[in-house]
Amino acid sequence: MSILKGMRVVEGSAFVAVPLAGMTLAQMGAEVIRFDRIGGGLDSGRLPLAPSGQSLFWAGLNKGKKSIAVDMKSPEGRELITRIVTAPGDDAGLFLTNLRVRGWMDYESLSKLREDLIMVTLTGDRHGRPQVDYTVNPALGIPDITGPEGYPDPVANALPAWDLIAGNLVVSSLLAAERHRLRHGAGQDVELSLKDVAAATLGHLGMIGDAVVNEAARGKSGNALYGAYGQDFVCADGQRVMVIGLTDRQWRGLVAATGIAEEISGLERRSGRSLRDEGTRWDLRHDITAILEPWFAARRVAEFAEDFDRQGLTWSLFRTIKEAVVEDPDLSPENPMFKMMDQPGLGRFPVPSLPTSFSEMLRDDPVPAPALGEHTEEILAEVAGLDFTEIAGLFDRGVVASMTTPQGKAA
Amino acid sequence: MSILKGMRVVEGSAFVAVPLAGMTLAQMGAEVIRFDRIGGGLDSGRLPLAPSGQSLFWAGLNKGKKSIAVDMKSPEGRELITRIVTAPGDDAGLFLTNLRVRGWMDYESLSKLREDLIMVTLTGDRHGRPQVDYTVNPALGIPDITGPEGYPDPVANALPAWDLIAGNLVVSSLLAAERHRLRHGAGQDVELSLKDVAAATLGHLGMIGDAVVNEAARGKSGNALYGAYGQDFVCADGQRVMVIGLTDRQWRGLVAATGIAEEISGLERRSGRSLRDEGTRWDLRHDITAILEPWFAARRVAEFAEDFDRQGLTWSLFRTIKEAVVEDPDLSPENPMFKMMDQPGLGRFPVPSLPTSFSEMLRDDPVPAPALGEHTEEILAEVAGLDFTEIAGLFDRGVVASMTTPQGKAA
Repeated sequence: MSILKGMRVVEGSAFVAVPLAGMTLAQMGAEVIRFDRIGGGLDSGRLPLAPSGQSLFWAGLNKGKKSIAVDMKSPEGRELITRIVTAPGDDAGLFLTNLRVRGWMDYESLSKLREDLIMVTLTGDRHGRPQVDYTVNPALGIPDITGPEGYPDPVANALPAWDLIAGNLVVSSLLAAERHRLRHGAGQDVELSLKDVAAATLGHLGMIGDAVVNEAARGKSGNALYGAYGQDFVCADGQRVMVIGLTDRQWRGLVAATGIAEEISGLERRSGRSLRDEGTRWDLRHDITAILEPWFAARRVAEFAEDFDRQGLTWSLFRTIKEAVVEDPDLSPENPMFKMMDQPGLGRFPVPSLPTSFSEMLRDDPVPAPALGEHTEEILAEVAGLDFTEIAGLFDRGVVASMTTPQGKAA
Repeated sequence: MSILKGMRVVEGSAFVAVPLAGMTLAQMGAEVIRFDRIGGGLDSGRLPLAPSGQSLFWAGLNKGKKSIAVDMKSPEGRELITRIVTAPGDDAGLFLTNLRVRGWMDYESLSKLREDLIMVTLTGDRHGRPQVDYTVNPALGIPDITGPEGYPDPVANALPAWDLIAGNLVVSSLLAAERHRLRHGAGQDVELSLKDVAAATLGHLGMIGDAVVNEAARGKSGNALYGAYGQDFVCADGQRVMVIGLTDRQWRGLVAATGIAEEISGLERRSGRSLRDEGTRWDLRHDITAILEPWFAARRVAEFAEDFDRQGLTWSLFRTIKEAVVEDPDLSPENPMFKMMDQPGLGRFPVPSLPTSFSEMLRDDPVPAPALGEHTEEILAEVAGLDFTEIAGLFDRGVVASMTTPQGKAA
């Protein structure tokens, strides 16, 4: 049994955040129905693609969902989606979206048909305008503090971090609202925006306070760990490592393992400051790095890796994604979170399930993403409650499609 | 009323992920008790600091919590924490931690005293070894794809994205487990690791599949939007903007607003490819950028900003954090998520509440972080159920401290 077994969520979405939210709920055991327009939504062909041209991105973010393809421009199609979103069931009536279709698909219209509906809408900004991770991030200043020290231009994240954070908050907002409904019976309209999630996070990390109350602006600091000590070094074999001296214990461990205690004492004497203080380690990071650099430059990783691990140092290698996939057992089926899967049209590679393990449940294996419209008939029959003749009529009129109809994207 | 009103969560944590999880629950209305050692936990002095030396980081990540300071090395202190974690109450018995103290503070010991305890533990990796955002990220290859095209070295994120994602997943994992307990009565041991969260996310985004099935490795692409079109441009006034052509609608809008339809047609003719396809926009991004560059270089932002907004383009300015705080109303009390707060020892700046709004509830104002040990007495009396004499004894023996005792950190 999975932790959310029995819950049904409907999702009308595209891109990262809301698809990730739906997929997380699916990996927790909820039945998640994603509807798309016939031919596929805005993200159906998003990169990266497999050699077949199918989207690895789409397959990754829609694992374990059921898919229905509907012509949302037709009144009949809209009526169908309305019916699926507001279908009865104590653990149903849960709707996630970032599509922002006003009128028939907004909370006001849908909650008329199911009063206890919980609808979670993620918008771009609080005014409802579209924003993407790539616009929110520069607007809030993160690229300005990212990148090599002294590099003149802003450097954007390669990871859509705000989307990923917002998607996770969509999940907890839905679960919080559903908890309230279980106790009090009331559904609600739940809203959040990508930009607000990012803005709040800057505040939570102290960055807004820092920008207001401190004169000096936080600058770029390359690959250094902000606020304490942590730095990357190139070793004798050309490999690059990251070593951490964030906590007192980590710092003492690093000093001991590299045998630099005497040089560190010298630095403390010269500067008149104690490196037991993390902020001092930050201030004097270039001096510390100058002491450590020759140590790493003189050694191959294999010469110190075991020793670092035995002494409990916090450190890692820099890898490319390709190297990580080949070399790191944590990204392979040796990790029970991953299963090797052979997916038609995509290829064979390790696919992750939920990172969380619940002791009361066995860990579920990951379930591949559906083909577009793979569950159209099943959903029309079991959720919308239509009979065979009604379903056939919808297919005939082109209101819905399944993976076998020509409009549908092939599996 | 807040959405999680009545829930009580105990948190023993440090740094970003678990403190963020506790704070999110507090901002949703739960009573969140954070315990720390006397003098403060590992993160009590984490940068950024206010001019007073107090941590803006700590204040940001512990808003709205109650704080108790306990000597965790003493058997009496351990007994107290055990008592607080396992205190009765249908909506209590929820414990979040990343401290990994084996023995008295593990699930096995604590669940003996409260069978339906839900304990969520975040570790560094799945083996229980410490890892931080700064080590997980290079190990999985994100710095290798971050940074300017052609830049030879890896570039780390300035944002602790994995911590923030993991912290949010801690919240939803807790809520999912509590939902299960409400229905079935059973508590459980819930575990996840920072590295697994990151590894799963790479898989969800299609990056693992891409690394396995495609020969070409994803490289650095500067500030370009990966997989479609999106690019930064420097304008005549020196300001830098990000413009997006991810969806067909955004792309057509960008072409129309900048009047480059003819050049784009020319590019399509020369290349024999259609730029209506997002993957083609990605492949030909440098050609598109060469067409757009002179357009932006010839214009000040003020010349096109209104027009872009009117036409519904998705775009933004690059700012520094300091500029964003001053210029962007979304980061100010004009945004109902922010309240201007005057915090002793920290200063006056806008403080965020929960990014989610629930239609059944009024949005709660943010509540500042407590001083260390501010609620020690209250928690001992109301949660641990001790009487005045017992509490006085604990203070006398130095087992606990409050904000007024010398060991405690001043407010």
